[in-house]
Amino acid sequence: MGRQRLLLLGSTGSIGVSTLDVVASLGDRFEVVGLSAGKNVDLLREQARRVRPRRVAILDAARAAAAAADPGFAGVAVHAGPDGLLEMIRAESVDVCVNALLGAAGLVPTVEALRRCRRLAIANKEALVAAGELVTREAAARGVEILPIDSEHSALHQCLAGRPAADVARVLLTASGGPFRAHDAGALANVTVAEALRHPTWRMGEKITIDSATLVNKGLEVIEAHWLFGLPAASVQVIIHPESIVHSLVEFVDGSVLAQLGAPDMRLPIQYALTYPERLPSPWPRLDLARVGALRFEPPDARRFPCLGLAYAALAAGGTAPAALNAANEVAVEGFLREAIPFGRIPEVIETVLSRHTPRPADRLDAVLEADRWARETAASLLVGAGAAEA
Amino acid sequence: MGRQRLLLLGSTGSIGVSTLDVVASLGDRFEVVGLSAGKNVDLLREQARRVRPRRVAILDAARAAAAAADPGFAGVAVHAGPDGLLEMIRAESVDVCVNALLGAAGLVPTVEALRRCRRLAIANKEALVAAGELVTREAAARGVEILPIDSEHSALHQCLAGRPAADVARVLLTASGGPFRAHDAGALANVTVAEALRHPTWRMGEKITIDSATLVNKGLEVIEAHWLFGLPAASVQVIIHPESIVHSLVEFVDGSVLAQLGAPDMRLPIQYALTYPERLPSPWPRLDLARVGALRFEPPDARRFPCLGLAYAALAAGGTAPAALNAANEVAVEGFLREAIPFGRIPEVIETVLSRHTPRPADRLDAVLEADRWARETAASLLVGAGAAEA
Repeated sequence: MGRQRLLLLGSTGSIGVSTLDVVASLGDRFEVVGLSAGKNVDLLREQARRVRPRRVAILDAARAAAAAADPGFAGVAVHAGPDGLLEMIRAESVDVCVNALLGAAGLVPTVEALRRCRRLAIANKEALVAAGELVTREAAARGVEILPIDSEHSALHQCLAGRPAADVARVLLTASGGPFRAHDAGALANVTVAEALRHPTWRMGEKITIDSATLVNKGLEVIEAHWLFGLPAASVQVIIHPESIVHSLVEFVDGSVLAQLGAPDMRLPIQYALTYPERLPSPWPRLDLARVGALRFEPPDARRFPCLGLAYAALAAGGTAPAALNAANEVAVEGFLREAIPFGRIPEVIETVLSRHTPRPADRLDAVLEADRWARETAASLLVGAGAAEA
Repeated sequence: MGRQRLLLLGSTGSIGVSTLDVVASLGDRFEVVGLSAGKNVDLLREQARRVRPRRVAILDAARAAAAAADPGFAGVAVHAGPDGLLEMIRAESVDVCVNALLGAAGLVPTVEALRRCRRLAIANKEALVAAGELVTREAAARGVEILPIDSEHSALHQCLAGRPAADVARVLLTASGGPFRAHDAGALANVTVAEALRHPTWRMGEKITIDSATLVNKGLEVIEAHWLFGLPAASVQVIIHPESIVHSLVEFVDGSVLAQLGAPDMRLPIQYALTYPERLPSPWPRLDLARVGALRFEPPDARRFPCLGLAYAALAAGGTAPAALNAANEVAVEGFLREAIPFGRIPEVIETVLSRHTPRPADRLDAVLEADRWARETAASLLVGAGAAEA
């Protein structure tokens, strides 16, 4: 087999960096034809020097213009802005597209990538949450394999091993519980940004770390699992597992449960997504269960972490409701990170946006984008109000 | 698909009874054409009344003669003794043979069954330990599928899902650690039969319960896994897991680990072995992980439980050494159960027998049977000596 052509969207984030680690460790298997970054041009330049892509895309237009004249990108086509990212996707026909973009901004590139690749390895859960119906339908119609990179969904994919949804009684997505697993409701309302960014088991980007602290991340993953595996919401459940060693479990109709375990290192699910159905030797840290000692499990607390219930509610409402939930969350998290609202306001913003949203069918991209835009505006207006009230 | 014809060898033991539970719960799927018992004719009669087999075999010749005249077996052909058991196997061509016989006595029936069935569901681990090379070679040559019923090997089969041995870095067989997991070496030497029969998590027959207390059971399972899955001894490892919820784990070459979990109920692996590759709904108890709370893991203590090391030594010695190990253990356990030797003597008997054994190739049935016979005699002579010395 010749080298596989790989396009990496979002190469300078945590998943992007890990993906390049995996690609390097796999030797000649992949040829990286394109990379994209938001604004971290320094890291992108270093990556480009190492993997020699044909193209890069930089979302920040001014930085893209500077990069085009930068000798560090000599011989590399530089695409600028969101449209440049789409241009880069269209310019290359690839075997594997890794989508490690952040947030619903990854949705349009996801749909574009489905037209250009044979496999989509997706870490960009927000695209699946906002437009799961559309993305999975389009992938099926075009014969594109979707391989999840989220550790939980990779775990489910590994446990299912191709078995149909009809064999599944339920899946259990594990959640570390985040840094505030043991906080009471009062303490939870006013935790600081620094506290929320201190995740107990995983090192990740800021947005997903806050999402883990509110448990909205697990809610998004419930919606993602629904679409990826064709499972009804009632069959997608969540269990708290503080050690983050069991990445998720599948209970089959006969009562047998399969679980996937591993050291908490994203390079493992990334490699799986790139090499499936093969399993190749890897240098990543191994799990030593006797050293871990004990794996604990407890039910999630819906009262202290209302974001989880909001995600189920959005999935039940259907259509564009998950897109609205996701957009409201992105705005609320951004507001929390710049200290415009306290931690406890994040679920309130989402809930208010959802309560005002009239779901429409989410079977067309423009309907999803319109719901996303509307929810962002609505959430932003709530942030302004909140900031004023509390000032 | 028509009803599948099922032959159940060892129907009155723990696995046999559970197998009939499973068959009953699966409705019309299976037709039980034959049952066998050692001497529990009362239970066999009741089973025969329920499932209406064409034949039964009773190992105890006197009881078989009485049964032949018993109206409770009217219309059922009664076969007597070990030869009668083989006659019954030869008389029926079946889809599935469940071998739940006890000890190396199941070996010749296993080989006979491989000539008469399309699938062998095997709980009789001693047959695989004594003659794994022969049994797996014969099965492959005849296109007979072997499905393990041991919960550990069923777990491995489920985790592997058809993947080849080359994908496996190692497998971890879980062991509850038995009733004496926390005993020190001194206390261990003189535990009573009643204490040894009190298994913390599984309800099983006497022989396997003692084997679990000495950990020789896990050693036998290491040898069994070696033959069933074509894994080198170094890749078959053991980990203590007191809750008996994780039934075993597979670590693949990429570092990912799959585990199979379930309530400790043998009906689950039995159903899997009968219905594979299908998974069918079952009424057996479900696992509630949040209720279990914690799953603990620790390394096994080779010093306090030398039987485990002896099993690896027998596998390394190769040929007929595992047959000798198994026979010595059967004699030693029987001696312990009738209080002829203390608990601590069981590994000593096995070790002495192994040290005197000259392994020969185990590729022919007569060589295996000869090693088995020799090891029994040698072990029995050690028991007599021990009894005399201690009297």
